[in-house]
Amino acid sequence: MREIDSVAKLTGYFSSLPGVGRKTAARYAYAVINMSADDAAGFAAAILEVKEKIGLCRVCGNFTDADECEICRRRDHSVILVVKEPKDVAAIEKIGDYTGVYHILHGVLDPSNNVGPNEIRISGLLRRLDGAKEVIIATNPDLLGEATAMYIAKLIKPFGVKTSRIAHGLPVGAEIEYADAMTLSRAISDRKEIL
Amino acid sequence: MREIDSVAKLTGYFSSLPGVGRKTAARYAYAVINMSADDAAGFAAAILEVKEKIGLCRVCGNFTDADECEICRRRDHSVILVVKEPKDVAAIEKIGDYTGVYHILHGVLDPSNNVGPNEIRISGLLRRLDGAKEVIIATNPDLLGEATAMYIAKLIKPFGVKTSRIAHGLPVGAEIEYADAMTLSRAISDRKEIL
Repeated sequence: MREIDSVAKLTGYFSSLPGVGRKTAARYAYAVINMSADDAAGFAAAILEVKEKIGLCRVCGNFTDADECEICRRRDHSVILVVKEPKDVAAIEKIGDYTGVYHILHGVLDPSNNVGPNEIRISGLLRRLDGAKEVIIATNPDLLGEATAMYIAKLIKPFGVKTSRIAHGLPVGAEIEYADAMTLSRAISDRKEIL
Repeated sequence: MREIDSVAKLTGYFSSLPGVGRKTAARYAYAVINMSADDAAGFAAAILEVKEKIGLCRVCGNFTDADECEICRRRDHSVILVVKEPKDVAAIEKIGDYTGVYHILHGVLDPSNNVGPNEIRISGLLRRLDGAKEVIIATNPDLLGEATAMYIAKLIKPFGVKTSRIAHGLPVGAEIEYADAMTLSRAISDRKEIL
């Protein structure tokens, strides 16, 4: 049986999502067929809305539907926690005990893939150092994350702002996004100054 | 941090898909944010297109973008294989050696959830018996599937059309040691003579 064109097309889009194989994508497509027309229309509209409304915060680079994100608008800017991706912010916010602001790099240095300092949002971070007391670098504890942390720490040094790295409470090679709240919380409170 | 409304809404839609939890749904939503605008627009359009174009085949009840599905248009109608859902058709078509047509019930009898003979597509099956030589009932080998198979077989009997049930037994490659008692019992009672 030839697969129906429109179903094949939708399956293709679903399988472009992270961790979704062809079989799972087909299940999702069938689920859409079984949705009410209203739900399907709402689903499609939600996709368009997210693309239309969500941009990057002018200050920290997190996803936001405003010019400046809610965290930057409301929080104390004397402590800046640097992460690789917006979903890392979501993971840390879930703990609820961090009260500073963030800076999202949208990547880490990766010379073998031609990702240098100009490809990630490092220069924006340096512009924020005025008035900052501490920068906590919370890139993933893997090779590229460590190298990026060291690079940023070196850049910040001349500014005289204290720079720290989250503690290796996280198993090496793990991803911040999937860490449990306790581990993540300990990793932040045990942060070590980079001297 | 308050979750951004439009992201929360899209996450909600993704989590309505089968087997998708809140965390996975959020990952999918972030993936949409990271898609190109063209891809996101295509994704949304594909959802709408599927809902608009896909209906049920007038004859067998399978999903189709035409009045009558491709299988019903091209295949021999003397053998009708009865399944619960469209995805069962996809599974059987993948084997590639069944040459008859299908009849999709879109459910099984389930009295405790008020699903009676009028709630699934049984009457349409009876109208197709004229000219049919055999009806193979391939509902799932569980309680409701068995009961539905027995009910349909009884309804077909007066029409004088041969009715069969797919075989129960051990799956190919299974180990007897790990088979459940019901399956093993059926495999033994349904044994076939080695000629």
